[in-house]
Amino acid sequence: MNYLKDIGEDALIKKLIKGLGKGEDLVVGPGDDCAVIDVGDALRYQLLKTDCVVEGVHYLPETSAHKVGWKAIARVISDFAAMGGEPSQLLVTLVMPENQAVEYVEQLYRGMERCAAEFGATISGGETSSLPAGSSAVISISGTGWVNKNQLVRRDEGRPNEVILVTGKLGGSILEKHLSFTPRMKEARWLVENYPITSMMDLSDGVAKDLPRLANSSGCGYFINKEAVPCNMGCDISAALGDGEDYELLFTVPAEVLESLQEEWRGVFPTLRLTAIGELTSEGAGALSLGDGWEHFRS
Amino acid sequence: MNYLKDIGEDALIKKLIKGLGKGEDLVVGPGDDCAVIDVGDALRYQLLKTDCVVEGVHYLPETSAHKVGWKAIARVISDFAAMGGEPSQLLVTLVMPENQAVEYVEQLYRGMERCAAEFGATISGGETSSLPAGSSAVISISGTGWVNKNQLVRRDEGRPNEVILVTGKLGGSILEKHLSFTPRMKEARWLVENYPITSMMDLSDGVAKDLPRLANSSGCGYFINKEAVPCNMGCDISAALGDGEDYELLFTVPAEVLESLQEEWRGVFPTLRLTAIGELTSEGAGALSLGDGWEHFRS
Repeated sequence: MNYLKDIGEDALIKKLIKGLGKGEDLVVGPGDDCAVIDVGDALRYQLLKTDCVVEGVHYLPETSAHKVGWKAIARVISDFAAMGGEPSQLLVTLVMPENQAVEYVEQLYRGMERCAAEFGATISGGETSSLPAGSSAVISISGTGWVNKNQLVRRDEGRPNEVILVTGKLGGSILEKHLSFTPRMKEARWLVENYPITSMMDLSDGVAKDLPRLANSSGCGYFINKEAVPCNMGCDISAALGDGEDYELLFTVPAEVLESLQEEWRGVFPTLRLTAIGELTSEGAGALSLGDGWEHFRS
Repeated sequence: MNYLKDIGEDALIKKLIKGLGKGEDLVVGPGDDCAVIDVGDALRYQLLKTDCVVEGVHYLPETSAHKVGWKAIARVISDFAAMGGEPSQLLVTLVMPENQAVEYVEQLYRGMERCAAEFGATISGGETSSLPAGSSAVISISGTGWVNKNQLVRRDEGRPNEVILVTGKLGGSILEKHLSFTPRMKEARWLVENYPITSMMDLSDGVAKDLPRLANSSGCGYFINKEAVPCNMGCDISAALGDGEDYELLFTVPAEVLESLQEEWRGVFPTLRLTAIGELTSEGAGALSLGDGWEHFRS
């Protein structure tokens, strides 16, 4: 018999979504940062997202509840940003043991509210359930958002020879940033308003896992220029590509806009790096390319 | 220090939502079966719902995965029905231990799909997360739905002297029905299309807990006619009112339509009982009324 640990998340999701019906109003289904729905609005698509943080996996019992709340919401906002959109309504499901202190849960909610308010979202509903003793708490967040139809960025429309960029520096998030990161909403909005962003996602599992997903979705191979990867202090290249939980933007643009984009970016976001780390290739999904100074991964 | 087990779900939710901002587009916020959002559509409101089932609380490890999947989706559909609406898109978050068999998860998904398809909903996205060993699995479902503006039924617009009705028979759900119940979508749609339903909710925790919620929201007291409560086979009145997981509809109508409603109902739904079990009173939220053959609860 096969167990979940044997097949990994991507293969599992592939299996599960195979049988799903596709409604007429479903513009982008499972596999992107958000589902995209045509609800009959002339100018906008609706974005839908669900995500969760699990005690012992995404945070520790001793972590500040306020920070856990911030993180739970910020992860979802980051996904809306990665589609070129903005959040609207958020729903919160708390699965907590009965012996959890009420004050902990109140602090958790205050952290969620603070993050939601910061990014213009409303917590409009929720659900609570108890949990058998000894089980890990689960905080599941789902939400709706909106994206202008002409600003929607998927992860499957990158094309060969386009440049791959990342915001910020990568790696080491678990040491400092994963509980208090700022979703790149402002940056993503600026990008889709000003440049032809052909594909985009947020970096939740690290470039080593996430870039192959983007390239695969787009039917492309990819190069990474190992020397160019922006590493956080104390991180080597392998930490920068593999640690995950960066919540930076990974996206592609046609090569001809690169110079202008980087110059304008420096003016608008002077304290946040924007780095070209490689390019998409025509070798098809799963293909690898080798070169001096380039790192490659199974795609 | 206070713990969750000391204060109960209703008091917890009341605490948590106190600080929440209220967006302009939020028509009905936390406290009803679904959140109701004005997304700018002329005729319809959007409904949002999140819910979860937890291993060891809502189902057992040995329960058929297909049935667990059906139940997880059916609970959410039941909430859309209780607002007078219909489901549209559903998102699935699975938090499962790594040593769960892949086939179990596939069966779970097949059960979810079957229920979604039966009620015209699409599973349009999801998320999976692993869980520390020994923890209970959590299946969190969230979704969007639609309700015609003139057919929206809340739980806070019941008025004194209106009749309280329930569909079906109550109690004993845990023995037979809680895994395979049919959400009362068809019945709810018929009700809101044909009668002035003033308040409605679905019975998830049993009349003894749910009716006080409805009455409280509506600022009313209530009577129950103990003799009238329709009990499932093998259930006494206390099981019928207290067992929970009935997933029947609990709703109110003005007394003057009762006769016509019951007569027409028998023609349209000949195999499903519709029973007047009491009435709302003017004594205000939390007030109790006593009478011969009436049962009362803390409201």
